Amino acid sequence: MSKEITSRETDYSQWYNDLVLKGGLADYSAVRGCMVIKPYGFALWENMRDQLDRMFKETGHVNAYFPLFVPRSFLEKEEGHAEGFAKECAVVTHYRLKANPDKKGELMVDPESKLEEELIVRPTSETVIWNTYRDWIQSYRDLPLLINQWANVVRWEMRTRLFLRTTEFLWQEGHTAHATAEEAVVETRKMLDVYEDFVENWMALPVIKGVKTANERFAGAVDTYCIEALMQDGKALQAGTSHFLGQNFSKAFDVKYLSRENKQEYVWATSWGTSTRLIGALVMAHSDDEGLVLPPKIAPLQVVIVPIFKGEEQKALIDQKAAEIISELKALHISVKYDDSDNNRPGWKFAAYELKGVPVRMALGARDLQSNLIEVARRDTKEKLSVSIDGIAGYVKQLLDEIQENLVNRARAYRDAHITPVDNWEEFKQVLNEKGGFISAHWDGTSETEDKIKEETKATIRCIPLDNPQEEGLCIFSGKPSRERVLFAVAY
Amino acid sequence: MSKEITSRETDYSQWYNDLVLKGGLADYSAVRGCMVIKPYGFALWENMRDQLDRMFKETGHVNAYFPLFVPRSFLEKEEGHAEGFAKECAVVTHYRLKANPDKKGELMVDPESKLEEELIVRPTSETVIWNTYRDWIQSYRDLPLLINQWANVVRWEMRTRLFLRTTEFLWQEGHTAHATAEEAVVETRKMLDVYEDFVENWMALPVIKGVKTANERFAGAVDTYCIEALMQDGKALQAGTSHFLGQNFSKAFDVKYLSRENKQEYVWATSWGTSTRLIGALVMAHSDDEGLVLPPKIAPLQVVIVPIFKGEEQKALIDQKAAEIISELKALHISVKYDDSDNNRPGWKFAAYELKGVPVRMALGARDLQSNLIEVARRDTKEKLSVSIDGIAGYVKQLLDEIQENLVNRARAYRDAHITPVDNWEEFKQVLNEKGGFISAHWDGTSETEDKIKEETKATIRCIPLDNPQEEGLCIFSGKPSRERVLFAVAY
Repeated sequence: MSKEITSRETDYSQWYNDLVLKGGLADYSAVRGCMVIKPYGFALWENMRDQLDRMFKETGHVNAYFPLFVPRSFLEKEEGHAEGFAKECAVVTHYRLKANPDKKGELMVDPESKLEEELIVRPTSETVIWNTYRDWIQSYRDLPLLINQWANVVRWEMRTRLFLRTTEFLWQEGHTAHATAEEAVVETRKMLDVYEDFVENWMALPVIKGVKTANERFAGAVDTYCIEALMQDGKALQAGTSHFLGQNFSKAFDVKYLSRENKQEYVWATSWGTSTRLIGALVMAHSDDEGLVLPPKIAPLQVVIVPIFKGEEQKALIDQKAAEIISELKALHISVKYDDSDNNRPGWKFAAYELKGVPVRMALGARDLQSNLIEVARRDTKEKLSVSIDGIAGYVKQLLDEIQENLVNRARAYRDAHITPVDNWEEFKQVLNEKGGFISAHWDGTSETEDKIKEETKATIRCIPLDNPQEEGLCIFSGKPSRERVLFAVAY
Repeated sequence: MSKEITSRETDYSQWYNDLVLKGGLADYSAVRGCMVIKPYGFALWENMRDQLDRMFKETGHVNAYFPLFVPRSFLEKEEGHAEGFAKECAVVTHYRLKANPDKKGELMVDPESKLEEELIVRPTSETVIWNTYRDWIQSYRDLPLLINQWANVVRWEMRTRLFLRTTEFLWQEGHTAHATAEEAVVETRKMLDVYEDFVENWMALPVIKGVKTANERFAGAVDTYCIEALMQDGKALQAGTSHFLGQNFSKAFDVKYLSRENKQEYVWATSWGTSTRLIGALVMAHSDDEGLVLPPKIAPLQVVIVPIFKGEEQKALIDQKAAEIISELKALHISVKYDDSDNNRPGWKFAAYELKGVPVRMALGARDLQSNLIEVARRDTKEKLSVSIDGIAGYVKQLLDEIQENLVNRARAYRDAHITPVDNWEEFKQVLNEKGGFISAHWDGTSETEDKIKEETKATIRCIPLDNPQEEGLCIFSGKPSRERVLFAVAY
């Protein structure tokens, strides 16, 4: 089983694809740039989505649903936004097909069904939502409006990769409206904290919080905050963004409210999103050459039990004991599968569940029953132990917590070891090539310099970390004065 | 508040729109035929979706996600299917906009971004999914494949109505693959039973299960089973369908499996779906001229408590007692809101929560505290009672069950009183015009007759009920011999 997986050393990119495809997370589709999220991958997404959804609701947000289509004229209303999205969008121009008179059995666009105004399949929903908010907001009493949407979006990417960059992807987009700039900024930062909490404490992936430079800002935002994670190949991955939109969209869509002071004011906005891209980050953060390694708190399946037996008599005894163990595990809300399928041998099953990243595997044999022991293997370290069956559920519960903790610690140690302060351009290029990771360096604050560094090295400024220490220095590239270091990396 | 609602008698259709809009369920959007599902409506949908999802999982199904776009050539592969959907679909023809050189600030379709093959925004996913199943199914060991998808779909309807018929809607679509026709039929019927169970026991809406005539069959199906509900205006509403697709799609997409007997066989298919249309059915089934009436089991909010007080001192005492009651209700998993907002008077609040269909409203005043009583009003019958605060949570729990039961009984009594056996054409037209509801009548089994009846009366055959008694008779319209009665109605 595991030998089908390309090793990281051989070809990191192929290793990733192997994990996604053979681990049962997703599949290519016949539709250009779109993927199929397979049941195992979707179960993982459901766990992630449900937890994020709980966190959004706990912070006072409600869900709603807005139309898939954005009229062309809406996109035009916010100039920066239009520039950012017009070049990569699916455009609906007609609403009917008809039989092709020249080719029997084929269909063609019915030219008589041409739309007066084209519809864009939403790449994001600011425009549609702010056009709606105009009707929903009249007075300060209608604020804040704290709404989230779970939806599919489409961005016409030229080069796609499963989960990391696909034409269609699933995401959530929060869109909030506030009476003051201060309140909107607080919301922007609060949701960044929610993302950090989720990604670190559920996905076991430590992140760096920061703010984007103008080059990397969301089209239409005043400020884009982000969480940046580090992958095992030393590349960074943006795991979530939270935007302070200022009054850009309220002005574009004329959304005003009557203040307590009885004045008409434009509304302040935020938006924030995470997507199925997080699954790509999860895969690359923890997995190894045997397959996926999933954090117990979001794994679709936490424990698998494989019986090892000869003959029906042994099997019956093992079945009975397994049923007891399973019921104890379930009582502790641990998800567990008993795989007594007869079409594969235990060794094959072990490899299969390793590939799928199931955190804990247990093997139960006839001899174990006599000694009242069960073999427990943890996926993260591959350690195996014989454990007493008495109190096994409590043991497994603690083990799952330990695995979760080990994963985040391991990822944090890796991340921390890959933030390299660098003070000259030669070293910058050398670290980037030989070690990778984040490079902490001075920058002169201009887009020109950032562009040139990107051109020469592919590295971009991932973020200016929040609470960044202020320190005098010289830009790594231009030599001009700088007040603080920023984090560079090559990114997904 | 309630006087804003048009009464059913005045204008049933406007009454429905008033409830949806003013009850906070949905809003029109600027995008043709698309609606915005507002937070209260979406919370209702979440409750319905989550329960259906549990029922799908309990019957062995898993979720997955397939692409939004259907290549034109996929649609062409199953002829009946293509005919059914080609005339009402959103067609993506280009993937880029560019600045319009003639109109400053405007965008236009970039003609250089024309797609070689058009993409249809999915009206349903049989084609995309069966094209994928070809790669997933090799042997009988891969079967059955029991997959569901929650998704948005688009059908370009010319006349739309909130929830009932919108260009975009949310739904679930199950797509299963089986080794034998028998097994696929069992699945088709099983999911029909799941729908019946959900609609009757959660939405409190009794349905009639049946099979569609050829005229009303899903495009591409061998048999379409359905559940049909009756609305208060005597019109029927199809609340869910489950299709036996035979081998139509496996043949169109060449999906074969190696049988136990080592032979290559085409796979057998089902598909089944319910949508946000169910919300329309829910609104029309139970509501009254004061507003929505929601069944407790799916209501976003089950109980509201309104304090009635003069001065801060009274309020403090009431707040304290309310907090106790709320904590008792929450311990019984009852959702509750305490509305002590100061911008509206109690009477206004009462009307507002009536409009929103909250099943139980409680009013807590200073005098009530002294007598240890609380006023409890049920939304369905509008009865009010003074109830002892001791044990109030248990009382409310039972009351919610009673309301749920009352709603389904009321709807069933109405439905049963509106199934009218009719034996001649004059009576048919008379009952249809004067009473409405289902008409049980003989039919000669031909599409021609069905078409003519529809033309004259707008009534269609809603279904041939399952387990229909066999009985000799004459077709109501043509006078030709018939073996069983079928159910006619004018439908949404």
